[in-house]
Amino acid sequence: MKITVLGSGAGLPSKTRNTQSFIIDLIEEINEYFLIDAGEALQHRILNTNIKPSKITNIFITHLHGDHIYGLPGFLSSRSHQGGEGVPLTIYGPKGLKYWLETSFEITSSHLNYPIEFVEVSHNDCFDISGFTVSTFLLDHNIDSFLYVFEEPVKKGSLNVNKLLDIGVTPGPVLKTIKESTSFEHNGTTYLTEDFLGSPVDGRKISIHGDTRVICSEDYYQLINHSDVIVHEATYLTNEKEKAHQYFHSEIDDVLENFNNVSYGQLLISHISNRYDEDDLKVIQDKLPSEVTLMYDLLDITIPRDSR
Amino acid sequence: MKITVLGSGAGLPSKTRNTQSFIIDLIEEINEYFLIDAGEALQHRILNTNIKPSKITNIFITHLHGDHIYGLPGFLSSRSHQGGEGVPLTIYGPKGLKYWLETSFEITSSHLNYPIEFVEVSHNDCFDISGFTVSTFLLDHNIDSFLYVFEEPVKKGSLNVNKLLDIGVTPGPVLKTIKESTSFEHNGTTYLTEDFLGSPVDGRKISIHGDTRVICSEDYYQLINHSDVIVHEATYLTNEKEKAHQYFHSEIDDVLENFNNVSYGQLLISHISNRYDEDDLKVIQDKLPSEVTLMYDLLDITIPRDSR
Repeated sequence: MKITVLGSGAGLPSKTRNTQSFIIDLIEEINEYFLIDAGEALQHRILNTNIKPSKITNIFITHLHGDHIYGLPGFLSSRSHQGGEGVPLTIYGPKGLKYWLETSFEITSSHLNYPIEFVEVSHNDCFDISGFTVSTFLLDHNIDSFLYVFEEPVKKGSLNVNKLLDIGVTPGPVLKTIKESTSFEHNGTTYLTEDFLGSPVDGRKISIHGDTRVICSEDYYQLINHSDVIVHEATYLTNEKEKAHQYFHSEIDDVLENFNNVSYGQLLISHISNRYDEDDLKVIQDKLPSEVTLMYDLLDITIPRDSR
Repeated sequence: MKITVLGSGAGLPSKTRNTQSFIIDLIEEINEYFLIDAGEALQHRILNTNIKPSKITNIFITHLHGDHIYGLPGFLSSRSHQGGEGVPLTIYGPKGLKYWLETSFEITSSHLNYPIEFVEVSHNDCFDISGFTVSTFLLDHNIDSFLYVFEEPVKKGSLNVNKLLDIGVTPGPVLKTIKESTSFEHNGTTYLTEDFLGSPVDGRKISIHGDTRVICSEDYYQLINHSDVIVHEATYLTNEKEKAHQYFHSEIDDVLENFNNVSYGQLLISHISNRYDEDDLKVIQDKLPSEVTLMYDLLDITIPRDSR
């Protein structure tokens, strides 16, 4: 499991940063990618990765500002010609997205060769997507903007082969059958599988925010607590707290302070404004705690288990 | 006057080619740029040029396929923050473009800080735009697709200063007044200005096609004849004439043969398919006549006077 940054910039792209798009790479886990937001030229960035567009089968849009969706029509159209034929795709996002995409395809006479399902999200939704639990939370922006929390299912512990040998079960294909059952019989006795399993392994948790002011509420803290990775915007990096508030964005010190209320593994800062040049950003990065990273385009972040 | 290629590719971008966008650089002539088509990531390409978005005041869209317009909403939004405030812009294009852009801005809650005028084009329109004559011609594609022909006004010949001296006019600010008049008086005699001017200098002519099959008709040849530059697509470069016809595109040999019917200075081939890699294209380029160029992104083509 890893996060690949396709666009780390704020409203306007720069020479080095596209507007916002992230991939959660779940190829090892479930053989697919989740795409979060779709800034313009998302498909151009993908050309510089190994990501197969046809393996992107779920897309999550945080909010409908142009810098988060203008890459969507182009990506979806190209996917038809990049192995996507017949491979269904679901798009989660705020009301209006379906209408805009359908209008775009009608105006451009585009006919995709795979089905798209649209799911309109609202506050406190909860979805089961390919085994992952995905929860939404309405943030504080000048239009509806959502947080998506992705939780990997708990993984069963490993089978204790020695303990099975003790009751006379010899290793072989039977082990897979036992692991997938809740109980099994051997020599006329019924056993509970859980008595032969090691401790279950917690799933990983990734919390990705749309544009927002910092949120201070108990239900929010509870939702994102114990995230392995939090992605949060800090459009303002040099103490312009009033401006951040005025434009419904966040300032980095406020973000860091707010997350003292939760435990997490890594904090990735997104939506980097083009007012900062890359040299400024290096100086700012150097002053940040080691668990906090200013995102940059094409950054890959591996998410180990139990990192929070 | 020059053409800058912002996107030379066909339907899908590649690592090296964006989808179609061209700039006609008229900074020396009228201090503005014309933009023709607006493929996705047009604004990203502009970041690698000296082009000021606020100086783009007229945009011409050949047709409404996504690879020719998906860069428009992002470019127009960013222009608000790139010196474009209060600088009006006119967009020429087929029916439907205005509706799509207005829908896009409504869905994304975008509020541009400059006025846009939309002009719906049809076959055989003729516009006077900043002194240039711009004519349209409906091409042969699976949706309405237009050719735009841009004609620079004829430039008056230079004043023959010696001839003026002969009638007693001495050089000074009066020369400017004489040149801008059709007749003038000196020592009680009325003279026609044209008798004191050298030959007028023809304006330059640029013909830029939307996607199309080759067009064979007398009115078409007449319209594009004597172009300094023709931009024409050749989505197919290796003899796939039937495929080209089937998909309403052009094959390069057909294009070259067709243009034996007209005189022109340079022929620029656009809409290069991503099925050809850059090495293939070098081989194809080497076999072309010297006046024919396969476009590539960020190519600058200067257009001298009297080049046809």
